[in-house]
Amino acid sequence: MNFVGSHILGVEQFSREDIARIFDVADSMAPYARRERVTRVLEGAILGNMFFEPSTRTRVSFGCAWNLLGGEVRETTGIKASALAKGESFYDTARVLSGYSDLIVMRHEKSGSVSEFAAASRVPVINGGDGANEHPSQALLDLYTISRELGHQGKIIDGMRIALVGDLRFGRAVHSLCKLLMAYQNIQLTLISPEALKLPGEYIVALENKGHTVTESHALQSGIQHADIVYVTRTQEERFESKDEAQKYKGLFRLNQEIYTEFCEPNTVIMHPLPRDSREDANELDNDLNDNPNLAIFRQTDNGVLIRMALFAMILDVVEQIDATSRNVNWYTSRRF
Amino acid sequence: MNFVGSHILGVEQFSREDIARIFDVADSMAPYARRERVTRVLEGAILGNMFFEPSTRTRVSFGCAWNLLGGEVRETTGIKASALAKGESFYDTARVLSGYSDLIVMRHEKSGSVSEFAAASRVPVINGGDGANEHPSQALLDLYTISRELGHQGKIIDGMRIALVGDLRFGRAVHSLCKLLMAYQNIQLTLISPEALKLPGEYIVALENKGHTVTESHALQSGIQHADIVYVTRTQEERFESKDEAQKYKGLFRLNQEIYTEFCEPNTVIMHPLPRDSREDANELDNDLNDNPNLAIFRQTDNGVLIRMALFAMILDVVEQIDATSRNVNWYTSRRF
Amino acid sequence: MNFVGSHILGVEQFSREDIARIFDVADSMAPYARRERVTRVLEGAILGNMFFEPSTRTRVSFGCAWNLLGGEVRETTGIKASALAKGESFYDTARVLSGYSDLIVMRHEKSGSVSEFAAASRVPVINGGDGANEHPSQALLDLYTISRELGHQGKIIDGMRIALVGDLRFGRAVHSLCKLLMAYQNIQLTLISPEALKLPGEYIVALENKGHTVTESHALQSGIQHADIVYVTRTQEERFESKDEAQKYKGLFRLNQEIYTEFCEPNTVIMHPLPRDSREDANELDNDLNDNPNLAIFRQTDNGVLIRMALFAMILDVVEQIDATSRNVNWYTSRRF
Repeated sequence: MNFVGSHILGVEQFSREDIARIFDVADSMAPYARRERVTRVLEGAILGNMFFEPSTRTRVSFGCAWNLLGGEVRETTGIKASALAKGESFYDTARVLSGYSDLIVMRHEKSGSVSEFAAASRVPVINGGDGANEHPSQALLDLYTISRELGHQGKIIDGMRIALVGDLRFGRAVHSLCKLLMAYQNIQLTLISPEALKLPGEYIVALENKGHTVTESHALQSGIQHADIVYVTRTQEERFESKDEAQKYKGLFRLNQEIYTEFCEPNTVIMHPLPRDSREDANELDNDLNDNPNLAIFRQTDNGVLIRMALFAMILDVVEQIDATSRNVNWYTSRRF
Repeated sequence: MNFVGSHILGVEQFSREDIARIFDVADSMAPYARRERVTRVLEGAILGNMFFEPSTRTRVSFGCAWNLLGGEVRETTGIKASALAKGESFYDTARVLSGYSDLIVMRHEKSGSVSEFAAASRVPVINGGDGANEHPSQALLDLYTISRELGHQGKIIDGMRIALVGDLRFGRAVHSLCKLLMAYQNIQLTLISPEALKLPGEYIVALENKGHTVTESHALQSGIQHADIVYVTRTQEERFESKDEAQKYKGLFRLNQEIYTEFCEPNTVIMHPLPRDSREDANELDNDLNDNPNLAIFRQTDNGVLIRMALFAMILDVVEQIDATSRNVNWYTSRRF
Repeated sequence: MNFVGSHILGVEQFSREDIARIFDVADSMAPYARRERVTRVLEGAILGNMFFEPSTRTRVSFGCAWNLLGGEVRETTGIKASALAKGESFYDTARVLSGYSDLIVMRHEKSGSVSEFAAASRVPVINGGDGANEHPSQALLDLYTISRELGHQGKIIDGMRIALVGDLRFGRAVHSLCKLLMAYQNIQLTLISPEALKLPGEYIVALENKGHTVTESHALQSGIQHADIVYVTRTQEERFESKDEAQKYKGLFRLNQEIYTEFCEPNTVIMHPLPRDSREDANELDNDLNDNPNLAIFRQTDNGVLIRMALFAMILDVVEQIDATSRNVNWYTSRRF
């Protein structure tokens, strides 16, 4: 696809070549995100960071990525005070807000809302999460992390073995990741979940149609053996009919250092879309893994900044201008990445 | 008036010459708002965007206008966490907050609050809406839109025919617009509203005393005939004693393409202060007008950015510095205005 | 201490020399805060202004201080939408958020939370208030104000006479100020409070152990005689078990111009951590003092910006770069400080 001026609404719009280009640009953003270099390539540009469904980290991550390119951020964090609550259509909201900024990131709880919004927007729109539907930058940062973690071990996405653990039914991140994997070959997936929280059948069919191998399991220990990547998820409490219903599934699969040592390979990479639920009754990924060098969960969120910078730079066609106009950071930094 | 260092509290402070100057400066802001040019004239300046009554679009519009001039925005969006809720006076709040910024935009639900605040502020204050009282930048952007839309047709504000439709009793935008019209001559106004939502008598008296012609009507079709401008408003639900009470008046006057074609002139301009209520029971301005080139409602909100940039630049005395220090935009833009 | 790269968690980490250095740097920030000069020394740097407990003025003051140094601000204002509400640990939150910015200011209602957060952060953290525990920048701005106000009278902190008035039990600002005073000599403190709201005994013991003189009193008039500084506080309503309980203590000590004239010295400086409660039943510091030149309460909040700029500049090691890269302000300013 041609990224310049495009909306980013879902992962199905990306070919394998598109993904490779995004990842290459993301790589080139590292010196800026790590505060070694400063660029002002988007100085004077404005991001409309429109989170009609509140969120802290995704909102801040997008805003930070834009700031790192030199632009300004205007934002909203909720729907109560918005015109949408007074009966305004997504069409009108989009027409109005697209007069205020150069690019819009939008999150809204209603599935499909961002596409409706984008159709009326006069500037490019990135989907920052529309309910159970899509959250493309999350899927991209997950796959980017997989690619770079495997790369350090001399492996690639094609042929990898990945175990997906936990709530595979409601986890939007898992669904989007599965869609992205359709662009690759010969992947061995092990799906580890309670019976009631299995990955929806259409994903399994689609993965198998693409030539991937899918195995379902209800046992953590056996399921994670021989995996290159273990991708653990939180029970998506907020999508269940009641807290009690969700409670049944919390804490069923818990990965900790002891299990890791006994069942995983020496270099198995541990991922999680975050936040992990560290309360005693859940604790799907134990804190005793925090010093495990294969715990990639914070590299994942760091990578989110790179991916979002890359999308911004590609959509606004400034990739080639960045390095030529950058300088060294002039303040104290001690960042360990 | 001398704009430099002044507060903007209401529209009555403007003479006809003041309005003309604001509109001229607003015109010169278009290349920046349309992202053809970038200026950094206010680089290092800070706007205090203090919305003690929440709002999305007005807040973002002011913030965006400031960013387009190169400045930074600090803001607040609600009153719950503010010192005002702990018994602090507007005097104290103003003394404190005016130490943080170069200019303050303030919105607060209490009528008169912004004037009280401005009296104690050490920096210029723009009223961003104080309850039912004033919202001067909205009135200016409405009149600016009228002026520029008529201008394309070779007409001017003097002598125009305008129909005001809907809730003329509670609509703050309509009241402020009427006040601004006092500076012009020989306008023919048709007021179309339910009996209970008529324009307050003092406005009618004042308009007639200035030599304007005012006709009241309860019929949309006949009322909009021969109008240069049809200005439609939403029923201000939130100002009624109950939702049921407001419900009685919703949907009484609905302008759509069929009615427009049959009753309006070929170039009648359609305006609305937005948001329009697109729910089925209201729908005062139908979506089938969206492709009508005379629908000016989104040009109105775009113009809001120009007006706010103009006010900022005039108050801070940087109008003459802008063009001399600007440059072309270096990123992708596809904006259709 | 070496400020570069350090966390600022509480006032006990500062020696007398540290305080003197902070105050010297704060002095040098005045031309920027007063909008005489502009610096862009932190252009490209990002502040994470993380207020998990909402606040308007402290949040805006920190954000403004960062903007005045040329940096960008990303922020959050509440905890409801945050991952902390979904069971995320402070460790995880810190690891994630510290990938987004160059420095974090954090406020959270839980005592000790900011230290826990800082331990996992990869960038320096300033405590913006952690419940009843610490709020070091407030204590520093209070002591800076005392130092500069006394300085104009040819006095210094050593040997000064200060009266602390009001809710000395729950007032975090008073506690932190007392801790800072440990670094000085021979101070005469008069503590004026209701019996139930006395300064906790450990502070009194510690002050006396350092050689200071502490007198307790229940009478405002006699207590404020011969004071160089009268530091008045609001009843911390929100810390009482009930509003009724707090109500008992409101309005017991009220300083106004008449009492000031009769009992204070001609140059006694009046301070208050703000907000003052100006409601009739409280009104601990009357508005009739607003024109008294010794009322230093708004100089206090102005000084907050200087102190926060100083902390930022020292932690990020840019103090020496500021003046060399600055320029004059090019827009209208009329600020009276």
